[in-house]
Amino acid sequence: MSSIYGESLKLSIFGQSHGKAIGMTLDGIPAGLSLDMEKLQLFLNRRAPGNHDYATSRKEADTPEFLSGIVNDHTCGAPISAIIRNSNTRSGDYAQLMDLPRPGHADLTAHLKYGGFQDAAGGGHFSGRLTAPLCIAGGMCLQWLEEMNIRIKAHISVCAGIADEPEVLDWANPDLAMIKTGFPVVNEDAGKSMQNAIAQAKSQGDSVGGLIKCFVTGLPAGLGDPIFGGMESRLAQIIYGIPAVKGLEFGTGFSSSYMRGSENNDSFCIDNGHIKSLHNYAGGILGGITDGMPLIFQVAIKPTPSISLPQKTVSMSRMEEATLSITGRHDPCIVPRAIPVIEAAAAIAVYDAILSQPIRRQ
Amino acid sequence: MSSIYGESLKLSIFGQSHGKAIGMTLDGIPAGLSLDMEKLQLFLNRRAPGNHDYATSRKEADTPEFLSGIVNDHTCGAPISAIIRNSNTRSGDYAQLMDLPRPGHADLTAHLKYGGFQDAAGGGHFSGRLTAPLCIAGGMCLQWLEEMNIRIKAHISVCAGIADEPEVLDWANPDLAMIKTGFPVVNEDAGKSMQNAIAQAKSQGDSVGGLIKCFVTGLPAGLGDPIFGGMESRLAQIIYGIPAVKGLEFGTGFSSSYMRGSENNDSFCIDNGHIKSLHNYAGGILGGITDGMPLIFQVAIKPTPSISLPQKTVSMSRMEEATLSITGRHDPCIVPRAIPVIEAAAAIAVYDAILSQPIRRQ
Amino acid sequence: MSSIYGESLKLSIFGQSHGKAIGMTLDGIPAGLSLDMEKLQLFLNRRAPGNHDYATSRKEADTPEFLSGIVNDHTCGAPISAIIRNSNTRSGDYAQLMDLPRPGHADLTAHLKYGGFQDAAGGGHFSGRLTAPLCIAGGMCLQWLEEMNIRIKAHISVCAGIADEPEVLDWANPDLAMIKTGFPVVNEDAGKSMQNAIAQAKSQGDSVGGLIKCFVTGLPAGLGDPIFGGMESRLAQIIYGIPAVKGLEFGTGFSSSYMRGSENNDSFCIDNGHIKSLHNYAGGILGGITDGMPLIFQVAIKPTPSISLPQKTVSMSRMEEATLSITGRHDPCIVPRAIPVIEAAAAIAVYDAILSQPIRRQ
Amino acid sequence: MSSIYGESLKLSIFGQSHGKAIGMTLDGIPAGLSLDMEKLQLFLNRRAPGNHDYATSRKEADTPEFLSGIVNDHTCGAPISAIIRNSNTRSGDYAQLMDLPRPGHADLTAHLKYGGFQDAAGGGHFSGRLTAPLCIAGGMCLQWLEEMNIRIKAHISVCAGIADEPEVLDWANPDLAMIKTGFPVVNEDAGKSMQNAIAQAKSQGDSVGGLIKCFVTGLPAGLGDPIFGGMESRLAQIIYGIPAVKGLEFGTGFSSSYMRGSENNDSFCIDNGHIKSLHNYAGGILGGITDGMPLIFQVAIKPTPSISLPQKTVSMSRMEEATLSITGRHDPCIVPRAIPVIEAAAAIAVYDAILSQPIRRQ
Repeated sequence: MSSIYGESLKLSIFGQSHGKAIGMTLDGIPAGLSLDMEKLQLFLNRRAPGNHDYATSRKEADTPEFLSGIVNDHTCGAPISAIIRNSNTRSGDYAQLMDLPRPGHADLTAHLKYGGFQDAAGGGHFSGRLTAPLCIAGGMCLQWLEEMNIRIKAHISVCAGIADEPEVLDWANPDLAMIKTGFPVVNEDAGKSMQNAIAQAKSQGDSVGGLIKCFVTGLPAGLGDPIFGGMESRLAQIIYGIPAVKGLEFGTGFSSSYMRGSENNDSFCIDNGHIKSLHNYAGGILGGITDGMPLIFQVAIKPTPSISLPQKTVSMSRMEEATLSITGRHDPCIVPRAIPVIEAAAAIAVYDAILSQPIRRQ
Repeated sequence: MSSIYGESLKLSIFGQSHGKAIGMTLDGIPAGLSLDMEKLQLFLNRRAPGNHDYATSRKEADTPEFLSGIVNDHTCGAPISAIIRNSNTRSGDYAQLMDLPRPGHADLTAHLKYGGFQDAAGGGHFSGRLTAPLCIAGGMCLQWLEEMNIRIKAHISVCAGIADEPEVLDWANPDLAMIKTGFPVVNEDAGKSMQNAIAQAKSQGDSVGGLIKCFVTGLPAGLGDPIFGGMESRLAQIIYGIPAVKGLEFGTGFSSSYMRGSENNDSFCIDNGHIKSLHNYAGGILGGITDGMPLIFQVAIKPTPSISLPQKTVSMSRMEEATLSITGRHDPCIVPRAIPVIEAAAAIAVYDAILSQPIRRQ
Repeated sequence: MSSIYGESLKLSIFGQSHGKAIGMTLDGIPAGLSLDMEKLQLFLNRRAPGNHDYATSRKEADTPEFLSGIVNDHTCGAPISAIIRNSNTRSGDYAQLMDLPRPGHADLTAHLKYGGFQDAAGGGHFSGRLTAPLCIAGGMCLQWLEEMNIRIKAHISVCAGIADEPEVLDWANPDLAMIKTGFPVVNEDAGKSMQNAIAQAKSQGDSVGGLIKCFVTGLPAGLGDPIFGGMESRLAQIIYGIPAVKGLEFGTGFSSSYMRGSENNDSFCIDNGHIKSLHNYAGGILGGITDGMPLIFQVAIKPTPSISLPQKTVSMSRMEEATLSITGRHDPCIVPRAIPVIEAAAAIAVYDAILSQPIRRQ
Repeated sequence: MSSIYGESLKLSIFGQSHGKAIGMTLDGIPAGLSLDMEKLQLFLNRRAPGNHDYATSRKEADTPEFLSGIVNDHTCGAPISAIIRNSNTRSGDYAQLMDLPRPGHADLTAHLKYGGFQDAAGGGHFSGRLTAPLCIAGGMCLQWLEEMNIRIKAHISVCAGIADEPEVLDWANPDLAMIKTGFPVVNEDAGKSMQNAIAQAKSQGDSVGGLIKCFVTGLPAGLGDPIFGGMESRLAQIIYGIPAVKGLEFGTGFSSSYMRGSENNDSFCIDNGHIKSLHNYAGGILGGITDGMPLIFQVAIKPTPSISLPQKTVSMSRMEEATLSITGRHDPCIVPRAIPVIEAAAAIAVYDAILSQPIRRQ
């Protein structure tokens, strides 16, 4: 557990927000897989700060330096390691962060866990910045999955209370090209309303959250293992490793709890000689194992805890209540930038499940 | 992964629904912990079939036989192993299950994964019956947690669309004694309405689902690890190992996605010399680490997939569509019986997180 | 770690010498592998007590009961669990064992580790009896390896100081049929001398040890992983899990330390269109990875610590020195019975390495 | 497995000999431990090339750059990551190494495993250079163990067939100060003879091997776990991860196989109110668990496979036999430089075992 994920691949993530560098090591990847560095950079740019109106205006190039594991743009079988240097170091608000924990952040719990030795600057190891190495690993897995015709795309299904409607993706046969590049929604009008709501929250010193719906198509049936190795468990462990995730559901998810069995059960049918589910209510997973239908899950992202409005907190040194005003630039909504992070996390979990498949009996 | 869970403790679950026995091995438990076998049996009875009007009428004593690890009602440091013999073996519907996969069950995916070699009888290793060994392990962990004054209780928050209202548990200071024994709700009238709705669904050959809200009180601050070892990841991996779970959220969860940061952020305050969160919106976890407040999560349980109403499926041998009628007795709603299973799973995850705490610097 | 082994397969061993049962769970095995139960029993008989003159005369049938994972003599994909009931329970010497630790046994360390809560009877979880479940798992793996034409055979290379000479197995192309059934040596005369030496030690209330040389033939090249996942590391972890093992070497092993590079380096050559090592000094492993030659290792087994001669120990309750006389029947030499245990351990490690091979790029 | 080691701590090693950098990530270390960087550098210098007459004359500063996990010379609870830049990149002998595998090296097996995609330059991920990051991790663990009064020291017990005699360390109470700094032996005359023998082998274009004996003092009793988690298994997994290790024994080890039980069994006695073993024949481990005596093991190091003398190999491209002459500077004996590597590996295994101790019952 801790900062390592995976069964057959092992992803180790390291670094603190304002330390020298952040990075990742990805071990257990077969040799001979090709890697398109430009394509990887384009993927990383989707997460990087400063590339969006609705995000923090701090511009920082998240360009990884690969230290090992890649020779001539191919995996060589050795662990793949890459780092991103931090241009920002020890920030000025360090003393304040050590004393006044920000509501909704890990400042307090890091202090309680590490007894004052934690790297408090910028959230340290708990910072959202640590999703950059996750995206390096995930961006590579996405390329290798694409070679197997497996595709992963997510869109904002709800933001600031506004739903991405009325057009929706067909669960049994989603057309992922319907998700717009730029602001990732299916319905552009809904997207514009969302962006307006974000801008409004920002102007009020506040923030908003949202939901992200993710689709994985082209998956073989039979992935995942019973009990604790099911696809839901595998995905949940990594998805909940992303800061600000507070909920996760598969297929009909929470709404299934309100349905009858006759409504929520999905009929099997024959389609072109293959067994399929008619509506894919199960989200592509039955008993933890993929059924060959698109895998569908939805993630709840809380509103950015960093807001400009004054908040009540405590001084840990003086053990008395205090008021905190967070200055500086921060995302009024991290949902758009979380989209590639969710795709990356899903790619890592899916690729690990593929590598973990037992060799079939001859 | 697969059928093993845990970082410091290792829980291995084995058995098939209609095999000789189901069981579990729990390794990594310190020596010298006492175990009250009667109390454990009382806990297992809460999950056992046949003890409730609203559950399957098949009565089966789920009495574990401990094979190892317990000497004189104390742990001896060796792996703890216990089994439950299955009184039902190879069932008559085996041939049908091998050919006509039940909608909403793992029959199809087990077939695709194991190429026809799976134990199809009664769902095999995917059966809800495998939650009995989970409850053996969890029932033990609950006792050991209780000695540390950590308590875990869950109630049905929604069933058949009916909410457990208007009385609710205070998130910052829940009185777990408000949860009724028997049908586990806070409000008895709501409970009666739920039971009526279950009975009605049953009489119509249908089933219903629901939500379960679980509280863990008395937890120390500082449990859990950053990134993939956070308490949400630890709990999610085991909770999603329980059949029929389709969603999971922590604290304000999905509803936080619709809030503003200023609403969802919780204020820190000083209470009797301790730092607390005012409302515990975060559900006791910030950055994956416990903050000393009650840990709160909610689980979505889908309606029982086994229903008497005829359903559309396919014949896998003839590759043509077919109609299936599931006979025999089955729970019209597994939510009440899932309550101790959720408590057990939470206890295992929490106890493992406690055992995984690094030794503090002197 | 602890009582679980394996990367892709997970072997969990449980039980105490005089508890209700000992057993094992083997998880992660592909579905559809056949299992010949009679053949497995014949393998287990090789380890069972009472089948040899030179071993303890206590006769006990080590017949496993399979609880799960096997349907119609084939693996079904679910964890395989099997137990062996103990006919001997709480022995009379329990009180003595709790107070007077036997030299060379784990009685003292178990006491120190578990603070008096350990199951001291018969050595508890540290007993050599726990190699029976190891042999269940290994006996299955041996069958599955045999289907791939991989064979594992060990012989006594030294016992009571007597070497299995002058005939020796060719390291580059060993004829495993040269190892005799019954008392497993290559040279029968040497074997007879060994048996005489064992009988003599027994008559003197003493015991002897020996060396076991194990060969694995038919292995594909490329098994194992760099650094900590090399074949030596994989084998060492499980081999050192066998009681009484005090040393392990691969290929020329300890004697290589006395050679020059020009002697110990092996020449590569072409043999029938394949690259081979001329003498296989490396024992089939270079850089932790198999090279396609037979894998060869040798294990040092200490003399049985249970001897009839009086020994000096301490009374832990009175904290004073004491004299201990171990009564009852015990093996004057466990080396012959350790042969199938070593073969079983090697089979588990090798089969796990095979299952852990990454899927090759298409 | 693969390039990751540990139960409670997780050590991940990455890099190739001639890639951009080599490095390590050490996760699971408690916060608040101090780290003396100068002391660490002094330890790394003992392994670094070019610091000894008997070693390769290539001088390279092995100075780690810490990227994360250390703040103000203390651990902060986040993963500790450090890298060493390689000054040598793609070497000129790359083409030769891709075609003519060096006897005794992993060139052939890497090629067979990775299908030609391996990084062949300088041995790639299999290079002895990868012991530098192992020493970074081990050097830190040595410091933290020292704070607990646990000390780890190794000496050359045999080199080029010359034993470090007649003075020897007392197994029950070793005086580690008897090991000389510089060339690490107990007897200086023996050490001079060894150095002469190394020089002679070098002058003949050949190499020699040796044995390393390692002592761990100050260990608490009760470390390690039964079966696969014993101290021998834990140490063996990491020790066999060091290139050129071909054998490993604990306490009397291989020689115990030639003894009788009455000779090899050690008496327990009372010493100053503590239970001790009289001679510590067991090397501090009984049943896999430490007994409070010094832990003693011996490692067999093969002669350096890189020698100047011409050797027979094959051309993999032409599949015909060929002669190889390895040019350049290489160690005629790696045993002296392996001493700190063995100490580092032992420190990592021991510190991991300490972190993995279950919390004692109150």
